[in-house]
Amino acid sequence: MYDKYLETNEWKIIERGWDAANHPKSESIFSLGNGRMGQRANFEEDYSGKSLQGSYIAGVYYPDKTRVGWWKNGYPEYFAKVLNSVNWIGLRLAFAGQKLDLHTAKITDFYRELNMREGYLLRTFTAELADGKQLKVEATRFLSIVEDEIGAIRYRFTPLNFSGEAKITSYLDFDVKNEDSNYDEKFWEEVAKSVAPKKGDVTARTKKTGFVVSAAMRYELLENGKLIAHTPETAERHSYVENVASIPLKQGSTYTIHKFAAVVSSLNYAETELLAAANQKAEAALKAGFEKLFNEHAAAWIAKWSSSDIIIDGDPEAQQGIRFNIFQLNQTFTGVDARLNIGPKGFTGEKYGGSTYWDTEAYCLPFYLASSESHVARNLLLYRYKQLGKAIENAEKLGFTNGAALYPMVTMNGEECHNEWEITFEEIHRNGAIAYAIFNYVRHTGDREYLADYGLEVLIAICRFWTQRVNWSAAKEKFVMLGVTGPNEYENNVNNNWYTNKIAIWTLEWTIEVIALLREEFPEKLADVFARTNFQEAEKIKKWTHIIQNMYSPYDPERQVFLQQEGFLDKEQLNATDINPAERPINQHWSWDRILRSIFIKQADVLQGMYFFEHHYDKASLRRNFDFYEPKTVHESSLSPCVHVILASRIGYQDKAYEMYLRTARLDLDDYNHEVHEGLHITSMAGTWMSVVQGFGGMRIIKSKLHFEPALPEQWKKLTFTILWRGARLVITIFKDRMEVANHGNQTAEFGLLARLFSVAAGENKLIPFNE
Amino acid sequence: MYDKYLETNEWKIIERGWDAANHPKSESIFSLGNGRMGQRANFEEDYSGKSLQGSYIAGVYYPDKTRVGWWKNGYPEYFAKVLNSVNWIGLRLAFAGQKLDLHTAKITDFYRELNMREGYLLRTFTAELADGKQLKVEATRFLSIVEDEIGAIRYRFTPLNFSGEAKITSYLDFDVKNEDSNYDEKFWEEVAKSVAPKKGDVTARTKKTGFVVSAAMRYELLENGKLIAHTPETAERHSYVENVASIPLKQGSTYTIHKFAAVVSSLNYAETELLAAANQKAEAALKAGFEKLFNEHAAAWIAKWSSSDIIIDGDPEAQQGIRFNIFQLNQTFTGVDARLNIGPKGFTGEKYGGSTYWDTEAYCLPFYLASSESHVARNLLLYRYKQLGKAIENAEKLGFTNGAALYPMVTMNGEECHNEWEITFEEIHRNGAIAYAIFNYVRHTGDREYLADYGLEVLIAICRFWTQRVNWSAAKEKFVMLGVTGPNEYENNVNNNWYTNKIAIWTLEWTIEVIALLREEFPEKLADVFARTNFQEAEKIKKWTHIIQNMYSPYDPERQVFLQQEGFLDKEQLNATDINPAERPINQHWSWDRILRSIFIKQADVLQGMYFFEHHYDKASLRRNFDFYEPKTVHESSLSPCVHVILASRIGYQDKAYEMYLRTARLDLDDYNHEVHEGLHITSMAGTWMSVVQGFGGMRIIKSKLHFEPALPEQWKKLTFTILWRGARLVITIFKDRMEVANHGNQTAEFGLLARLFSVAAGENKLIPFNE
Repeated sequence: MYDKYLETNEWKIIERGWDAANHPKSESIFSLGNGRMGQRANFEEDYSGKSLQGSYIAGVYYPDKTRVGWWKNGYPEYFAKVLNSVNWIGLRLAFAGQKLDLHTAKITDFYRELNMREGYLLRTFTAELADGKQLKVEATRFLSIVEDEIGAIRYRFTPLNFSGEAKITSYLDFDVKNEDSNYDEKFWEEVAKSVAPKKGDVTARTKKTGFVVSAAMRYELLENGKLIAHTPETAERHSYVENVASIPLKQGSTYTIHKFAAVVSSLNYAETELLAAANQKAEAALKAGFEKLFNEHAAAWIAKWSSSDIIIDGDPEAQQGIRFNIFQLNQTFTGVDARLNIGPKGFTGEKYGGSTYWDTEAYCLPFYLASSESHVARNLLLYRYKQLGKAIENAEKLGFTNGAALYPMVTMNGEECHNEWEITFEEIHRNGAIAYAIFNYVRHTGDREYLADYGLEVLIAICRFWTQRVNWSAAKEKFVMLGVTGPNEYENNVNNNWYTNKIAIWTLEWTIEVIALLREEFPEKLADVFARTNFQEAEKIKKWTHIIQNMYSPYDPERQVFLQQEGFLDKEQLNATDINPAERPINQHWSWDRILRSIFIKQADVLQGMYFFEHHYDKASLRRNFDFYEPKTVHESSLSPCVHVILASRIGYQDKAYEMYLRTARLDLDDYNHEVHEGLHITSMAGTWMSVVQGFGGMRIIKSKLHFEPALPEQWKKLTFTILWRGARLVITIFKDRMEVANHGNQTAEFGLLARLFSVAAGENKLIPFNE
Repeated sequence: MYDKYLETNEWKIIERGWDAANHPKSESIFSLGNGRMGQRANFEEDYSGKSLQGSYIAGVYYPDKTRVGWWKNGYPEYFAKVLNSVNWIGLRLAFAGQKLDLHTAKITDFYRELNMREGYLLRTFTAELADGKQLKVEATRFLSIVEDEIGAIRYRFTPLNFSGEAKITSYLDFDVKNEDSNYDEKFWEEVAKSVAPKKGDVTARTKKTGFVVSAAMRYELLENGKLIAHTPETAERHSYVENVASIPLKQGSTYTIHKFAAVVSSLNYAETELLAAANQKAEAALKAGFEKLFNEHAAAWIAKWSSSDIIIDGDPEAQQGIRFNIFQLNQTFTGVDARLNIGPKGFTGEKYGGSTYWDTEAYCLPFYLASSESHVARNLLLYRYKQLGKAIENAEKLGFTNGAALYPMVTMNGEECHNEWEITFEEIHRNGAIAYAIFNYVRHTGDREYLADYGLEVLIAICRFWTQRVNWSAAKEKFVMLGVTGPNEYENNVNNNWYTNKIAIWTLEWTIEVIALLREEFPEKLADVFARTNFQEAEKIKKWTHIIQNMYSPYDPERQVFLQQEGFLDKEQLNATDINPAERPINQHWSWDRILRSIFIKQADVLQGMYFFEHHYDKASLRRNFDFYEPKTVHESSLSPCVHVILASRIGYQDKAYEMYLRTARLDLDDYNHEVHEGLHITSMAGTWMSVVQGFGGMRIIKSKLHFEPALPEQWKKLTFTILWRGARLVITIFKDRMEVANHGNQTAEFGLLARLFSVAAGENKLIPFNE
């Protein structure tokens, strides 16, 4: 049974009633972020119960010493990880010496809300202290998406049955560490701090990487809405500053703390300017005031929703699930900075180190392409472009030459950050996903100049990798690719993984096409790229064509399915339903060798490949492969079910599509895998978006044209989603029997629906019955 | 170029002249051991230069926390390692306050000798202190193989140009740690200590494992051979005791320190008796005196040589090399205790943790079988028998049932101590080597009752493992074994490794034979084994036979060679000579994926299998496989060359055999791999022995009969070795044209020579020309 403790609501995540056991989960689920900072839903007040403190700054990482048993050549020495950073939310309350600790106080009427529409966190509750003092609390917090270096808190409390002195401490604490530190080390060193009445700041530097972060705070106190004149005491200790205000309380009055924090980093300022910037921004926030900042922020969120919302009519849980996913994706990456990217857990926990995986290209990109201005997706691509030099260095470490690039499997700054050989060295399909993302970007945006300016350079380096990575098999009289791990990580070091071979060949094919295209459109830029990359066109194209024509592709002629890899049919042929349910998930119950030699699939990479290259295959072939692989797939990657939703929808398996959708849509809200306390599955949330839009909405881009082949689940009455498409903003509503397209943009858009072509002008609203 | 600094001598290893850079190497090479204890050639005196302190006690280990990056189910939490233990050799000298530190003193006439014939370490040198004081030193040390808990030192010095006060400190220091400690932790806790004039003891306990070790010391001082009456001062600190004697020195007189240490452990005593035992033994040693202990010890070594010596005439370097190997093997394991085994580095360093690998069964056993009484080899087998329960538990962790056993890859106490999945979980051929060792023992000793008492129980458990580990491939209509790593560790997670498939099937075949044999000879014991193991004979034998008859064996019909694994012919077909010499050894230059997908072989497991099961193959087949695999083998395992020597000798490739022999014979003496400072390659020394006896001597046991097919290298005039064979002690001398067999035992022995059969009676000496 899933542990369901949250209320269903279209726009809100609601926790009602206090159970400390749920708090670590809620800390993840109610996380806030604005692309620049992330903050787990830790309490402002003291809390001596179980908690994972998490305050993260995008792009600020630490190269922790790697813990590894057996070293292999080419392994990185360090594992970059997202850093727990300054605790800027902290407030400490004491009443006549009695401290408020939410773990020891008696909490009643607890209510926690994540308001997704306006992007804030709200808590209300009544606390009773050991001596019987009761107070009512309401706390609101947001990380501004307008001023993305500002966090603000409105903390209100009312003493219900007492008067007397309160001590209210506002603090900044930079004396923090990571829970996942390998050697229990602290990663920050204090640079400076200062504290004065009603203000304070702390500046710290990361060891080794030398990122510097300044945090400054301001606050004000109000009684029944009126400012309280007071002079707080100040104190400081290592990397910590505080203001302690002593004020007399009156029973029944309401007291408000407005706390504003500015957190700025050396990513964006000269070091010498950091401290001033932090203080200036905090001061400005105080002056603007909570209401104004809040209103701007909320309005920006409402605007964001206008291009990214999905409305599901008839299924409130699905509605809440998809909005939660969209909300978290928009909190994680806003596209303002090409040095930033999307970690599998975003800024909601320490796991996966906040690093970039192939998730970004394979799963996240379509969401940002369809629901954000094109610079957002473009910045995700530029991130890899900027790291091309390091990808070439990485390939050199593994023995490749002549400008071949192998992008890292896990990275923060372009260097490989992981060291399992079967992943780092062999899960090379990631290179293909990075090429595919360029293809995806161009077919969505039509921005072919990107290819000339950046894309082709990356493609050439990746092609160079593939051509060196294959070898000629005299036995097969074919090119083969030995020793790889495909997206299905439940196979390691296999030969001729169908998916990897396929995406390698496709990269070569498409790069040849790109070169032809650029020769037409940007011949001078093309010549530049060739010169920059020292590319001998004729010779290379000949070699690539030879490989394309002679690459081995494992296939079973009897079943007419592609084979995941060589030897796949030697396995004991079982289905996932043959596994003892007590032994699921198998990765928590079986030893690794048993998983490897079993037929069970973590995520089906043949189907992933057929999803990417759907236009290469007919539906009958898709169905045969789906029928073969789907029953063997245990979906123990959160990235797995979405592809099954899309393909099942495509081949008319509506029940299967909906079943798979349920596995992905509320993964974190319902904590299917009992791990949400570690953080949210941010990148798989983009998979959920794909499930809805590409699966049930049937959206495709075929030869630069938008197409729809809707397959609405039985359970839903209608489905609305928005697609930004070359100047158009298409609000698409799918009913059982018709589709409505409203163009809120300023360009006419063409699109296909069930093999017919339509166009919809700016401002037009078109209703198209399916059977006509 | 190899770094050759040792003199060639038939019976001695000699280092002449002082070069501190050689000291860490010499500390390994000049190591002493007596099967119970090991001691690196650390100096008695203070030495502030580079040194790896190593004093080891067989069977005393520590489960250090494992450092591993990514955990997998079934991994052990701890990695057992041999412990650096009490420093019992320590002597500290000071002259009028001027300390003797061999790193800062000026050392001349340095001479270090490992006397292999009598088993001792000797050093002589002259030291000049900073103030010009000169003294001449001679230090002799041994670890008694008669009293194997006693170490003794005779330290003599003569002040050459000064008189005056000397302070001589004798100490025991148990405040030690391992250099390879993962968290820089100390593994010993003090239990007790006491010190009094001329005596001291320290007792310490290992953390976690709770082994307790007591060390006691005694000493005496002599001037020109006469005891010096004196009362030393005593002192102690944490886990440390000392006696400091102040004596007046006379220029030109010779002063002698006799230091005796007893080291006893809770493996052999009740904890309450340890301290008394240590003191009683140290006291007894003092009373017996250095000369008497030394003479007994030397005589025992000379006796050992009578059954294990090899004499190579015409090649002094080879002579020294083979004696060094035999000496170290006899220092490492004496066979008195079935709880002890042979680590790859014996007791000469920390690497490989002193743990047991398949090396023991596959490489070491033949040496001990041929050159020691049969209980020695038997104890090596019993070691595994005693650990059968843990091997069954280990298999259960990996999902096997019903009494199937998987012996650990690396172990101290029967539990798996390693955690690379491709090794721990997949390098399962070790199970086959353990079965093969039983076969090897029985065919050498004829001790079939061992099978009834112990052997069959192990065989059944291993057969159960193999039958569960294979699966039926519908595609091949054969049984297959997926996801294994063979002895060639430069392939991981392959399907149908020929060697592993072969040894699995052989285990089943031979176990069926054993059951038939025991039914004849020990029917009651057989019934007992069946009852104990709950073995359903008829059903199992039917199943095993089905597998034997239908197991897949990879084979290339074109080249008529066995294929190392499936897909082997898809690799780029190169030879080791195609590798850029600057990139050898490849494991220090290439990333792991590159090594894996290359054709290059660490050790050729097809050839290993053909060596084990030579009688299954004709010479033409052996030659084809040798010709195919040998050029692809880079021999980056020290266990590799010996098999090539043996097979090359067998098929008449004498030059190749000799070339390979040179790679193994002086591996440590010439420090080919620049790693001898870490310790000696003890287990591969047994491979060298096999090279000589089975390769050049051509010794085989075929159907319980001894056979010889000699192939003397061109470079050698004659070769003499000794084989203990069922009551006979055969001293065999091979000349270019004849073989001489002298039987020094008390039973007639039969043997074959080049397809003719002979017998040699006790006391007889037979000379047989090859061409007759």
